[in-house]
Amino acid sequence: MFLADCQARLAFDLLGNTWNAVVLWSLRHGPRRPGRLREEIGGISTKVLTETLRRLEYNGLVTRHAYAEAPPRVEYELTELGRSLLGPVGAVGEWAFAHADEVMEAQDSWTDPPS
Amino acid sequence: MFLADCQARLAFDLLGNTWNAVVLWSLRHGPRRPGRLREEIGGISTKVLTETLRRLEYNGLVTRHAYAEAPPRVEYELTELGRSLLGPVGAVGEWAFAHADEVMEAQDSWTDPPS
Repeated sequence: MFLADCQARLAFDLLGNTWNAVVLWSLRHGPRRPGRLREEIGGISTKVLTETLRRLEYNGLVTRHAYAEAPPRVEYELTELGRSLLGPVGAVGEWAFAHADEVMEAQDSWTDPPS
Repeated sequence: MFLADCQARLAFDLLGNTWNAVVLWSLRHGPRRPGRLREEIGGISTKVLTETLRRLEYNGLVTRHAYAEAPPRVEYELTELGRSLLGPVGAVGEWAFAHADEVMEAQDSWTDPPS
């Protein structure tokens, strides 16, 4: 059971935080400044974006480039490892796009949802 | 940004609970009794397995069949919807198998991990 082991847990934990997946996905076309990421994503606060980028960096999925300009410029970019996660993230996203309505219908059919 | 919407959040929330993915995956070959699932998965308590199956049922991914035998027999089976999630779950699992070591190496390289 390859899924029961701690490697798989690590991956599902990473993706269980939806912001991780969203920010990773929004970096798929190349390096981005945080301000541009916020615009493209929509509905993410500066604080949450900063925390998410820090977490992705910690997990080796994103690198931070700081340029000594005036004003200082910072960009984030996917690492090769981060790029390798785009396929699985895309697969989950496509599934959600196609099937989330069915899940919500199923949920609505219950009068006694599990906690 | 298809990933920022609530459909995608639903999917990543489902997979963020690793047991959901593990139990879903362990039903890929057909209907199973809970006892057999426990044996095949390993390291899952009866309580957690029961809760997980109930959650998967609630989300329309699994159906429960109760047979009026003596002793009563209960089996769980993937729905078509549950089956459709095997691909994305497999993609994440394969990624984890190939790359989790790199993530852990990256984590170990930090002296000040994010909370």
